[in-house]
Amino acid sequence: MTESRWQAVFRVRSEAARIDARALTIAVEQSVEMPVGAIDDPAILQDIVGAVDSVAELGGGLFEVRIGLSVATVEDDAGQLLNMAFGNTSLHDDVVLHDVVLPAAMQAAFGGPNHGLDGMRARVGAMGRALTASALKPQGLGPDRLAELAERFALGGLDYIKDDHGIANQAYAPFAARVPAIAAAVRRAVQSTGHPTRYLPSLSGGVDQMHRQVRLAVAEGLDTMLIAPMLSGVASLQSLVRAWPGVAFVAHPTLGGAARIAPELLFGKLFRLFGADASIFPNFGGRFGYSQATCRKLAANATGPSPHLRAAVPVPAGGMTTERVPEILDFFGTDVMLLLGGSLLEARERITEATAAFTQAVARHGQGNTHG
Amino acid sequence: MTESRWQAVFRVRSEAARIDARALTIAVEQSVEMPVGAIDDPAILQDIVGAVDSVAELGGGLFEVRIGLSVATVEDDAGQLLNMAFGNTSLHDDVVLHDVVLPAAMQAAFGGPNHGLDGMRARVGAMGRALTASALKPQGLGPDRLAELAERFALGGLDYIKDDHGIANQAYAPFAARVPAIAAAVRRAVQSTGHPTRYLPSLSGGVDQMHRQVRLAVAEGLDTMLIAPMLSGVASLQSLVRAWPGVAFVAHPTLGGAARIAPELLFGKLFRLFGADASIFPNFGGRFGYSQATCRKLAANATGPSPHLRAAVPVPAGGMTTERVPEILDFFGTDVMLLLGGSLLEARERITEATAAFTQAVARHGQGNTHG
Repeated sequence: MTESRWQAVFRVRSEAARIDARALTIAVEQSVEMPVGAIDDPAILQDIVGAVDSVAELGGGLFEVRIGLSVATVEDDAGQLLNMAFGNTSLHDDVVLHDVVLPAAMQAAFGGPNHGLDGMRARVGAMGRALTASALKPQGLGPDRLAELAERFALGGLDYIKDDHGIANQAYAPFAARVPAIAAAVRRAVQSTGHPTRYLPSLSGGVDQMHRQVRLAVAEGLDTMLIAPMLSGVASLQSLVRAWPGVAFVAHPTLGGAARIAPELLFGKLFRLFGADASIFPNFGGRFGYSQATCRKLAANATGPSPHLRAAVPVPAGGMTTERVPEILDFFGTDVMLLLGGSLLEARERITEATAAFTQAVARHGQGNTHG
Repeated sequence: MTESRWQAVFRVRSEAARIDARALTIAVEQSVEMPVGAIDDPAILQDIVGAVDSVAELGGGLFEVRIGLSVATVEDDAGQLLNMAFGNTSLHDDVVLHDVVLPAAMQAAFGGPNHGLDGMRARVGAMGRALTASALKPQGLGPDRLAELAERFALGGLDYIKDDHGIANQAYAPFAARVPAIAAAVRRAVQSTGHPTRYLPSLSGGVDQMHRQVRLAVAEGLDTMLIAPMLSGVASLQSLVRAWPGVAFVAHPTLGGAARIAPELLFGKLFRLFGADASIFPNFGGRFGYSQATCRKLAANATGPSPHLRAAVPVPAGGMTTERVPEILDFFGTDVMLLLGGSLLEARERITEATAAFTQAVARHGQGNTHG
């Protein structure tokens, strides 16, 4: 692969006799999207038209198809990368986007996280252990109740407390009323614990509204925010990352789908590429169906070495409990943020104690006392 | 269904013995996303927690599950509607979002297209017949070549000429250079033909960049634009529709297949709800696999009567030919825009003549001379 080409890797269901023709169709659909015979410009034929780099049989009627595409058609535009990788081909149901392979200069142009794993650790002074997080729920609570909940979480020593991803700008808890109230509550708790717990407000709406929300949150002293890139558009994530280099952005997987873009690619590799400092995903053994293998590859994509991209924090979540902390940390290691939601909320009036048990379990594991 | 609830309709694969429990799980996941037993606020239990409205067996291990959700959690936020309808549930692979049912006041709050079918007809003076369109391809061409192509298309009498959806803001054809060149070329052709052909530039990047692009295009006298809502985020579509009431927006379906949302819902109902004036989709019998039934439902969702929403223009596309015009118009009727791309480009130096044959075939059909 030269520096002028990148590669989209598909898994395609096909009869063996038809796969070569199918691969060529994908190469054309994802590049010029017109009959190649009607193109007379030699530069377009050479530089822009997609090429079938390889076709490999995986067994069971499944093939891996690698298509070489032009760097010039994407440059450093996140939406355009998804468009050229899987845009129209997503409308065919025999094919899944499995991976992308990008030359170094293209990765550098995207730039990845401004803070990433190291920055997310530094914010809360958590070295040598996993990070901890929880979520403010249920939606429907007003600013005062959310603030009270956040304070009780923070008193338990969490690193990060995020809005539930369902909390947007609703009349019962509008951003402009909720964020100052919760930020103040967390500041009170931080004064009491001495631990610099961060509150992450959830950004919503168009990116113009999101910029206004970030401005308000920064004015409240906040430096970490939650965004759902598949709702906002990946271009909105990229726009925020570039406009607010001091802010760390945690990506939520909502609407990320299960079947058509490999989760290790979307949540592990692409969200990092587009600048997410941390990426939440459904952990194995919880209430979602991801396998251990998927979770391992996802975390590796988020944290793996790159000459141009900071590591992003993998954030397994979804039906996790304090009891599972040792198992999960044995699996992922400490370069991870553990996000517990419902299982802490079930403690009701003992939320602070349940939260403290969670944060202490993570801290103990970091000290080698792994199953204490 | 009261005015305080809307309904998300899912198709779920399940064993019969497990479907009731599965439905309840979806209702919780798509609303409060926490153990209901840990919620002590009666208003949240009554107003916010999702309800299983019905479960119906469709046969073959497939069930239709209707979940009632709170209007207050969504209000008029497009991203939030997708979030609450299918956000985390999209991460499960046993379920597809099949439909949404919205109370009238919620539809009115969203507002739908500013122009819609009637406005798209009025722009080009096309009454009593279908609309016609084509696309500027291949990407990789510079502004001069794209402008030359647009002029030749316009001389053939097209109503709308759009940028290929792969054309973004690339160095070889940046928006600021391409759009004035193409707009000028189409103006020249319009002076020659007397037909008010419209050129639709493709918007790309974050919505902040898109606003700048719209401003530039409006300054060039353009009033119709192309947007890909699944790349930009549906909130970006909504933001543009609200900020630019004089501009009509045509939605492109790219990346829309990755979401496991029924196409008649996403491209027919939701894009209209969020304000798209026209919605492109892969036609049956072309190079995509949509059935006639899907296309018929999609068109009905785009144009069906609503007290609050203008009809949007359904735009079947993808591997269509002039020869198929009578068949396609017999199927859809005239409330449709036909988009031909590659089959016109294949005419090469005779593009204007091939385009004229296409536009005349559509016009003839409108006069009742349906198979002439």
